[in-house]
Amino acid sequence: MATKEQWHELAQQLRVDSIRSTTKAGSGHPTSSMSAADLLAVLMSDYLRYDFSNPKNPTNDHLIFSKGHAAPLLYAVYKAAGAISDDEMMTLRQFGSRIEGHPVPVLPYVDVATGSLGQGLPIGVGIALAGKYLDKLPYHIWVVLGDSEMSEGSIWEALELAGHYHLSNLVGILDMNRLGQRGETMLGWNADAYAARAKAFGWHTIEIDGHNLDEINDAYAHALRPRDEPTLIVAHTLKGKGFSEIENQPGWHGKALPPDMAQRAIAELGGERHIIVQVYKPEPGQPASHGQAQPFRAPTYEVGSSVATRTAYGDALKALGAARPNVVGLDGEVSNSTYAEYFAKAYPDRYFEQYIAEQQMVGSAVGLGVRGYLPFASTFAAFFTRAYDFIRMAAISRANIKLSGSHAGVSIGEDGPSQMALEDLAMMRAVHGSVVLYPSDPNQTAQLVAAMADHQGIAYIRTTREKTPVLYGADEQFSIGGSRVVRQSDADQVTVVAAGITLHEALKAYDQLKGAGITIRVIDAYSVKPIDAATLHAAAQATGGRIVVVEDHWEEGGLGDAVLAAFSGTEARRAQGPLPAVTKLAVHEMPGSGKPDELMDAAGISARHIVATVKALVG
Amino acid sequence: MATKEQWHELAQQLRVDSIRSTTKAGSGHPTSSMSAADLLAVLMSDYLRYDFSNPKNPTNDHLIFSKGHAAPLLYAVYKAAGAISDDEMMTLRQFGSRIEGHPVPVLPYVDVATGSLGQGLPIGVGIALAGKYLDKLPYHIWVVLGDSEMSEGSIWEALELAGHYHLSNLVGILDMNRLGQRGETMLGWNADAYAARAKAFGWHTIEIDGHNLDEINDAYAHALRPRDEPTLIVAHTLKGKGFSEIENQPGWHGKALPPDMAQRAIAELGGERHIIVQVYKPEPGQPASHGQAQPFRAPTYEVGSSVATRTAYGDALKALGAARPNVVGLDGEVSNSTYAEYFAKAYPDRYFEQYIAEQQMVGSAVGLGVRGYLPFASTFAAFFTRAYDFIRMAAISRANIKLSGSHAGVSIGEDGPSQMALEDLAMMRAVHGSVVLYPSDPNQTAQLVAAMADHQGIAYIRTTREKTPVLYGADEQFSIGGSRVVRQSDADQVTVVAAGITLHEALKAYDQLKGAGITIRVIDAYSVKPIDAATLHAAAQATGGRIVVVEDHWEEGGLGDAVLAAFSGTEARRAQGPLPAVTKLAVHEMPGSGKPDELMDAAGISARHIVATVKALVG
Repeated sequence: MATKEQWHELAQQLRVDSIRSTTKAGSGHPTSSMSAADLLAVLMSDYLRYDFSNPKNPTNDHLIFSKGHAAPLLYAVYKAAGAISDDEMMTLRQFGSRIEGHPVPVLPYVDVATGSLGQGLPIGVGIALAGKYLDKLPYHIWVVLGDSEMSEGSIWEALELAGHYHLSNLVGILDMNRLGQRGETMLGWNADAYAARAKAFGWHTIEIDGHNLDEINDAYAHALRPRDEPTLIVAHTLKGKGFSEIENQPGWHGKALPPDMAQRAIAELGGERHIIVQVYKPEPGQPASHGQAQPFRAPTYEVGSSVATRTAYGDALKALGAARPNVVGLDGEVSNSTYAEYFAKAYPDRYFEQYIAEQQMVGSAVGLGVRGYLPFASTFAAFFTRAYDFIRMAAISRANIKLSGSHAGVSIGEDGPSQMALEDLAMMRAVHGSVVLYPSDPNQTAQLVAAMADHQGIAYIRTTREKTPVLYGADEQFSIGGSRVVRQSDADQVTVVAAGITLHEALKAYDQLKGAGITIRVIDAYSVKPIDAATLHAAAQATGGRIVVVEDHWEEGGLGDAVLAAFSGTEARRAQGPLPAVTKLAVHEMPGSGKPDELMDAAGISARHIVATVKALVG
Repeated sequence: MATKEQWHELAQQLRVDSIRSTTKAGSGHPTSSMSAADLLAVLMSDYLRYDFSNPKNPTNDHLIFSKGHAAPLLYAVYKAAGAISDDEMMTLRQFGSRIEGHPVPVLPYVDVATGSLGQGLPIGVGIALAGKYLDKLPYHIWVVLGDSEMSEGSIWEALELAGHYHLSNLVGILDMNRLGQRGETMLGWNADAYAARAKAFGWHTIEIDGHNLDEINDAYAHALRPRDEPTLIVAHTLKGKGFSEIENQPGWHGKALPPDMAQRAIAELGGERHIIVQVYKPEPGQPASHGQAQPFRAPTYEVGSSVATRTAYGDALKALGAARPNVVGLDGEVSNSTYAEYFAKAYPDRYFEQYIAEQQMVGSAVGLGVRGYLPFASTFAAFFTRAYDFIRMAAISRANIKLSGSHAGVSIGEDGPSQMALEDLAMMRAVHGSVVLYPSDPNQTAQLVAAMADHQGIAYIRTTREKTPVLYGADEQFSIGGSRVVRQSDADQVTVVAAGITLHEALKAYDQLKGAGITIRVIDAYSVKPIDAATLHAAAQATGGRIVVVEDHWEEGGLGDAVLAAFSGTEARRAQGPLPAVTKLAVHEMPGSGKPDELMDAAGISARHIVATVKALVG
C-alpha cells in the first residue's frame, strides 16, 4: 500500500502532466482531468491489476475512460505506469501521434474508443459479461464516468443491464465535478440523487469526497469486497482541482491553459515530477474453455421451397455456434422474430438477452469483442438506428462485431412504417470499413453468415421478414464483395440490379419481359458494400449502358447509390468513363400498412414497375 | 362520474373491439391492448379532456400511446368516443386505411407516430414543456407506456428531463403486464422497482392493480391534484386480460386470435357492444402570446472577414427568435459550441436545455412541434447519430423540426474522430422528405436558417467549426434546392462540386490551376438535398462531362452520392444522356488528431488533391 504522501505526489503529477500536455497541444481538457486525478492516483497505485508489458494478458483489469475527454489524465496515468514516455505523452493531439485527443485503441492499453459520452459504461458492461460468465476470470472493469454523461440514456441502459446480470466485477467511478461544458449539470453536486438512481437500478453505491485520499482508498477496498452487484462510487470533486485560479470555476471546460497560466498552475501543484509507479500485475490465469473450433456445417434448404432469410440467419448462427466456441449471441428482445432464439436455445451460456436497449446491445458487443469473443447482435433493422452512434464509434474502436437486422423494407407489410427499415443500408454503408450484405435466399444467407464470422470488422446483414423461394443450391458459394448474375443472355437489353426481396421481383419481371420478347440481365447484388463493381461494369457494357436498380429502401444511400458509386472514381481509382444510364426504383412516399405485395407495388418496386421501366428504356 | 358497471362495460368493449379488429386483419396486438383496457376505460370516461370535434383545440389533453403496438386499443377508444366508426375501425391494417398497424398522425387525433418503443414519453415531455412553459394552459399529457419499453435509455432521458423541469402536467400510465415479445421483461411484475426508479428521477409514483377500477379511478384523481412533479402510475396488469385461454400466457404477443378463438373470447367478454362515451371537452382557452411575427433581419458579415458558419447559425437563430415568436431553442449541453447560446441568452423563456440527451432533445422538438412551436435543436453533428431513430420516426410523425449539427468532418482538427461527423449527410439524406443544407459562408448560413424556418418538414443544417472567409455579400439570396456557380468561364475543363469547408479548398485549387492554365467551374452545392440537378447537368455539359466532387464526409451517402444521384433517373425523371464521369474525393481512412489543414490533406480533400485530380483528368 502506498503512503498518502505518495498518492498525493502522484496525483499532483497527473494534474501537472494533464496541464503540460494540453498547454503544449494548445487544446484539450485539463480541468476535466484534474478533478479525477486523486481517484486515478489511488487506483493505479494500489487497486488496478494490469500488466503493462502484456496488454493482452487475459487476467488484466480493464480501465475505461467513459469520459473520454479526460484523455490527458489517462495518458498521464500511462506515463506514470512507465507504459509511454513523457516525450510521447507530450505529443498529445499532434498529427500522426498515438496520443489522440480522445482515447483510441491505436494505443494497446486502450480497449475501445471513447469521446462520445455515455459509451464507456455500456462497453464496460460487455467486458464484465465476458469476465463473469465466459472467461470466468477475476479481473475487474473500472469505468471512469463524467457527471454530464449521466444524462445519456445509454448510461441507464448499462446500469439496468449490469444490475440485472449482477456484474459484481464492474466498478463505476463517477467524477462528480458539477460543471459540464456550458454550465452546471442537471444534478450538480447532488450525490444522493445519483446514488439513489443507481441503487434503484440494482447497484451498490458509495458516496465519497473525491479529493480525500483515505475515502478514495476505502471506497476501492469496499468495492472489491465480494458482493452480488456492481458498484458505483460517487465522488464529489472540483473541476480544475489544485489550481486556485480556475478550480471550480465555470468557463474552463475543454480549454488548455495559456503558457503563463500553466506555469503558475504547475508551480502551485508543486512542479513537474516523473514518478513511475509499479502497477500490480494480475495473478496468472486462462479464460474458461468453450470447446474446440469445428468446421462450419451450413444449414441447407431445398431449391423450390420457401424460407425467410431471417430464418436462415437463425439457423446459420446456431450452426456457427457449434463451429466456433467464441461466438456469442445478443438480441434486443425480439429473438423470436430475428430467430436469434435458435442460438439462444442451443447455447444459453453464450447468449445474453439485451432487452429493448439497442445502444447497450451494441456496447455489449464491442465489450465482448475486447475479450476476443465474436458477438452477433440482432434486432429489427429499423431499430439499429437507435444504436448508430455506438456503431459509428465501434468503427473507431476497430471492433469486430456482427449485426443482423430483420424486417427490412415495406415488404414487412401490415405493421407499418415504424417497423420498416428504409434507411439501414444508407446508415450502415456510411460506417468506416463496414461490410453490408443483403441476401435473397436462405442458402446464400447461411454462406454469408459464415463469411461475416471470417471477416475482421463491422459486418451487417439485412434479412427479410417474408418467406421467399429458395433460388440457390446449398453447394453454391457466396462471398463478401461478390454478386451473382442470375439471368443472362447475349441479347440482354437492360441490366436489372436487385438484392433481397426485390431480386424475386426482378425474376418475375424477367419472365414477363421474356414473354414480351425482351431479355434482361438480372444481377443479385447481395454484397451492397463492398459492391462487385467489375460485374456491374461488364453488365453495363453488355446491355448498352442501361441499368435499373430496384431496392426496398429510400432512394438515398442504399443499393442504387452503391451501384452509381461503382461507376464513379475516387482519387485512388479514377473514373474510367461516363456513367451508365441508371434508373433507380426505390421507396419515395411514406408507406402505410397493407399486404407486402400491395406495399411493394405502391412503392413502385414490384415486378410490374420493373417491367414498365425496362419497356420504357428499350422502347 | 361513470359507474363502475359503465367503466367495466366500456373496458370489455375496448377488449372485444381490439380482438375484432385484429382478428379481421389477421395480425396485430390484441393481448397488449387488453391489458390496458381498464386503464383507458376509466381515463376516457372521466379524466380525459378532449374535444373530438376539434382535435386542434389548444386546451385539449394529449393522449399518446408510447406502446404504439397497442394501437387496436387506441382505435377502440376513438370508436367509443364516436370519433371513428366501427366500420372504419375494422379496416385496421388494410392498405389505404388510416387505421394503421401502429398509430400515425394521418388520423387527426394522433399527435405523433409511435411504434418504435421508448418514443412516446420523450415526445410527451416536449408537449408538456409547451403546456407548462409556453402555452401556459392546463391541459394534461397522458402517456400509456409498455413495460418492455422501460428498458430503452430514451425513457430515462425523458424521466430525468421531466423531473428536472417539474412537468406536473405529465402523467405516465405504465401497463405492467410482465410479458414482452419473447418472454418476461427485465423487471417482471416488480412494481416497486419501477416506482423506486421513477421516484429517484423526480417523479411522483402510484402503484395500483390495473384491473381494479376503483384503484384506477383513485390514481387518476390523485395524479391530477396540484403538485410539482410528473406522475407515474404503475399498474399491475395481465396480458390478454379477460380471455381465460390466453390471459397471462406467454406466446401471445403480436398475434391475432384465429376466428374461432376470437368468437370464444368475445363471448367470454360479454359480446360486442357499441357504447359511445361523451368524452369531456376541455375548458376553452388560448395559448399565452409570445408577441407578433416580425420580418426576419438576417445578421450580416463583411466579405473578406472570417467567420465560422456555426457562429452564423447562432446569430441567425437569435434573429429568427426576434422575428418569429414560435421559435424555440433546444441544445444538448454544447450551446457554447453550436452557438445556440445566443438564442438561449436572448430568449431564455423559449430555450430548454436538454443536457446530453440527444434522443430526448429530438423527442422534445417533435412534442413542441405538436403544439405549433418551431423547434431548432442543435448539437455536434456527430451526436445526432444518437437520435437517428427519433429523426426517422419524426418523419413518420410528419414533424416540422429543424436540426443543426456543428463540428462536421475531419476539419474540426485535434479532438479526433469521436467528435467528427463523417456520416451525418448520409444519415440525414435517408430521412423521408428531409432537407439537408451545408453552407460555406456566414451570410449564406443566415439565409438558409430563415429558409429552414419557412420550410415545412425536417430540415438539417451542417455547420463548420473553423472560421472561414466570407465569400458572399449579405444581399445575396440562397434557397433550399439551390446552388451557386462560384467560378465560371467559357473555357472550363472540369466542374468541381463542393460544399461547406471543401468549397474553400476548391477555390484555392481554382487559383492554383488558373496559374497552371487550367480553368475549372466551381459549384457550391450548399443544398445537398434537394440537390440542384439542373445546374449540375449544365456544368457537366459545359466541362466535357468531367466532374470532381469533394467533401469532408465518408465516401458513402454524402455529397458525392447526391451528385451521382442527380445524374440517375427515377421512374418519374429518367436520366438524359450524355452522362458525366464523376470522381469523388472524400474521407476513406480513419482520421486521428491533428490540425485541420493536416487532416484535410491527409484525407485527400485539400486543394492539393483537387489540383492533382483535375490535372490528371485534363492531362
